[in-house]
Formats: sequence, structure tokens, C-alpha cells
Amino acid sequence: MAFVILNHELVEAEKATISVQDRGFRFGDGVFETIRVQAGVPYQFDWHMKRLEAGLKAIYIAFDATLLKIDCKTLLKRNDVKDCLLRIQVTRGIGSRGYLPQLSSSPTVVIETAPLPPFTGAPVSLLLSRYEKISPKAYPTQFKLCQGLNSTLARMEASEQNCFEALLLNSERQICETSSGNIFWLKDGTLYTPALDCGVLEGSIRSAVLRFSPYPVREVRTDLDNLMQAEAVYICNAAWKILAVEKLQPAKVQWQSNPLASTLNKLLDQDIASYIQTYGGFWKSA
Amino acid sequence: MAFVILNHELVEAEKATISVQDRGFRFGDGVFETIRVQAGVPYQFDWHMKRLEAGLKAIYIAFDATLLKIDCKTLLKRNDVKDCLLRIQVTRGIGSRGYLPQLSSSPTVVIETAPLPPFTGAPVSLLLSRYEKISPKAYPTQFKLCQGLNSTLARMEASEQNCFEALLLNSERQICETSSGNIFWLKDGTLYTPALDCGVLEGSIRSAVLRFSPYPVREVRTDLDNLMQAEAVYICNAAWKILAVEKLQPAKVQWQSNPLASTLNKLLDQDIASYIQTYGGFWKSA
Repeated sequence: MAFVILNHELVEAEKATISVQDRGFRFGDGVFETIRVQAGVPYQFDWHMKRLEAGLKAIYIAFDATLLKIDCKTLLKRNDVKDCLLRIQVTRGIGSRGYLPQLSSSPTVVIETAPLPPFTGAPVSLLLSRYEKISPKAYPTQFKLCQGLNSTLARMEASEQNCFEALLLNSERQICETSSGNIFWLKDGTLYTPALDCGVLEGSIRSAVLRFSPYPVREVRTDLDNLMQAEAVYICNAAWKILAVEKLQPAKVQWQSNPLASTLNKLLDQDIASYIQTYGGFWKSA
Repeated sequence: MAFVILNHELVEAEKATISVQDRGFRFGDGVFETIRVQAGVPYQFDWHMKRLEAGLKAIYIAFDATLLKIDCKTLLKRNDVKDCLLRIQVTRGIGSRGYLPQLSSSPTVVIETAPLPPFTGAPVSLLLSRYEKISPKAYPTQFKLCQGLNSTLARMEASEQNCFEALLLNSERQICETSSGNIFWLKDGTLYTPALDCGVLEGSIRSAVLRFSPYPVREVRTDLDNLMQAEAVYICNAAWKILAVEKLQPAKVQWQSNPLASTLNKLLDQDIASYIQTYGGFWKSA
């Protein structure tokens, strides 16, 4: 029986419910994080907490995050999972039918565990989405807001076309990200990735790759032509780690398989191992 | 004790809950409608049902809407309200942690009643929002998707500046709509409103005004300069009816008070009365 933590209480997952009046349900009015857990340790936990808190601040949800760490530890122990995804969602809570929140609303917080998808290392295909990425001028897109329809529609479209993922451009037709991950490409010994001001959600694995890449990394604003001339392309998120991309539809571009994907994943595994070494004490203690 | 209808069952409002796994809660993955009810009759009910079904289709939620009408009638009778707002929300239901929905997911439907705000007829102020309206290229913005953060942030900003509502421009800096309503303005004997392809959500009162306006109506793509030269400005939605706008901040534009607002509200009241006359039978029968 899996449990979740709902407002700091352990609850059986099937019995964990929130009010239909919660603004998370009414409007997607909240923020979430998805954290990779290995050997019982949530990788880059403090980084995720910092992004969560910055996201909540950006949408004016006042939330005290001090209990989250102990809540996460309680849940991982109760569900007895060592390798999983940890999903934390904070919404504005109950209050108001219309858009203007009541000042009295009190945040709802849900923590869940989910299985890690199997890592095959096989290259994947991307579909160039007909949906445009939401502009950072519309709301703070750099955070994982519970506004998932753009990503959902793009991902469904990709799946329908037998592609693993969708590539989204921003309103200036610049490369932005996939529906659930960041993108990198290799050319002439440099690793490129869209700059944050393209409207990119700064993912945890993206930030890690920037730290340990064996090639210089350049954050750029560029268009599809540039990507099509790349030697190799990669996508990443906390669930996938780093995946090689073999083709982009319907552009009919095929990229060579390149040993960099496995090199990057080895460096990521080392980084995770080192993180566990440094920060594992808290998570492994009774 | 107010009730709601949750998946076709009457439930006490305070006890109406949905799973934390509902994609409505995870991602705002759903559509809603807010319908004005007067004398026990939901105004333009079939129009709202048509928009709801079109919205669900646009985001690929398969939903059988045939029970909604009888459910709404049951709720209005149980809550014993004659004048209220009726809110119907349909989400994709439980299924999947990531963006790609499980095919097995079964929609969640919630119907609620809420008080009508008092109508004072007093002119209101608008704040020119620093948030840009979400582009219809990102997702089908013409429907009331449960993606409320853009509107919420704009409305909070307006409230902070002591304005009633926020005016949002689209990515081409054209006048689009307010955070929760449509906008009209009068100039030289013509009533103007942004064209749907500006990224406008086609509201129920907007569509009614287009039918009964005593002035010719032109749907246009235009910028703020044009609005500032208007003789009078109005905003509308199902909760407010039609409100005169007296000023736009920080542009420091002030518009004259104009008898058209009360004329339009009289025409709206007549239209509602005529609707009740024509369609009231079903709603008033036992």
C-alpha cells in the first residue's frame, strides 16, 4: 500500500483527497517539483527546494517549506522505496471561485512517490510540435507551475505520431525545450543549450550538465536550422537522465549515435554518487 | 448546507473531494464554464454546453455531456437558489504522473453554485497588466481551460494597485481582454471589441452584446492608442453583466460616464427575460 503525505500527514494514496474548491483543482494554481531519488537520497534536494520556493514566491503563495525535508524522509521510509521519483506539489489551497485569491487561503501540500521509468539508453525521436511554448511574459515559465496543458497537448501529439517527445519553439521560433525536458546539442566540440531567457524551464539535470560537461557549454538563442546542423542531440530530465535523440519529425533530420550520451550519463551517475556520499547521512539516518 | 454535484452525485460541498492524482489538480488539465442563473434559469445554457464540449474536444478529453443538464437542475433545486452562478468543471480525471495521459483515465465532473456578486452599476478602473495574454498558439485559449495563473497574477496585480480589473494585451501588443472578462469601446457611433483571433476567450455576454447592440459592432485587431481615443469603455462577463470603465492606469486615461452602459444592461436584462420565457419550462418543472 503506497502512502502520500498530505498537509504533513501520512495518508493512504488511494484515500488522499483535496477539496473541489482547492485552487489547484480550479485553476492549476500551484507549483510542483519532481526529484530523482537513488539509494534513498533525493538528488539535488536543496536545489529543488530553492526552485520550489522561488516559484511559490513568483506567484505570491506564502508557504513555509521548513517541514518538507522531514516529510519527504518520512514518506520515503514509509513507502520503503530507494529508487523513485519524489513529487512535491504546493497549491494556493481553498478559496474563491473567481481568479482573485482570498487572503485567508492556506496552501495545500502533497508529496508522492512514483516509480522511475526504466532507463534503456536507446535513442529517441522528437516531433516538432505545432504548439508554441508559453511566453515568460505571460507568467513565470521558469518554474514548474501546475499549468500543464501546453506540455500535455504537445506530448499527446508526439505520442500520436509515434514520437517519444515533442520539441517546442518559443514565440520567436527559437528552440526552447521539450514538453518535459531540456535539450542540448553538440557541434564542433561545443555543447549548446537554449538560454534561460528563451523561456526555458531550468531543469535539475540541465543545471547538473552545465556543471560537469566535458565540453564547453554555450547557452544560446537560436533557431531550428542550427539544431538541424548539430552532430548529436540530447534531452534530459530527472526521470530520463540523458537521452540521445536520433531524429526530428517531420524535418526528417537524423542524428548520428554519439558516445557523448553515455559519457554524460556516466558523469551524471558519478555526480549522483558523490551527492549521496555528501548528503546521504540525513536521508539514511533513522 | 450547500451541495455540489460530483460525478453525477449530490454531495455536501464541504465533503466534496477529488483524488490528489486527478490531472485537474496536478496540471489544471480540464475545462470549466461559469453560467449566470436568474429566476432559476441558467442563461444561454446550450451556448455554454456547446463551448464546454468544444473545449473538451480541443484538449482531447472524451466526455459525455448528456447528463449535465439534469445534474444542473438537480443542484439548483437542492441548493434552492434562483439567482446565482453555476460553475461546471470537467477534468481529465485520475491517471499518470507525467504529462502524457493514460488512455484509461475517466473524466471528473464537478458542478457548484456560487452567489452572484452585487451589481452596483458603478464605473470601474482597469490596470494595464504587465502580464501578456497567453498566445492561442500555445493552447486553445478561446475556451475556459483550468489554466488560471495568467489571469490570477494579472488580477492580483490589479487589486494591489486598487484597480477592479486588469487589461491584458496579446504578444503583438493588441488589446485582448481583461483577466476575467471581455472589453468593448464606443467611438463615433460604432462599438468595437477585439476580434477572436487576437486570442480572445469568447465570453457569453460578449456574444449576447454582439446580438443586441444598438450600435454596429466591429471586431478589430488594434492597439492601446485606439482604446485611449475611445469615448467610453465597457467590460463584461456572466458575473458582472456590463460595467462602464472610468479609467485605465497607469495611462491616466479617463473615460466619460456614458448612458450606453445602462442601455446595454437593459438590453441584456431583456434578453435574459426573453431567454427565461423561452427556455424556463424545463428548469421550472418539477
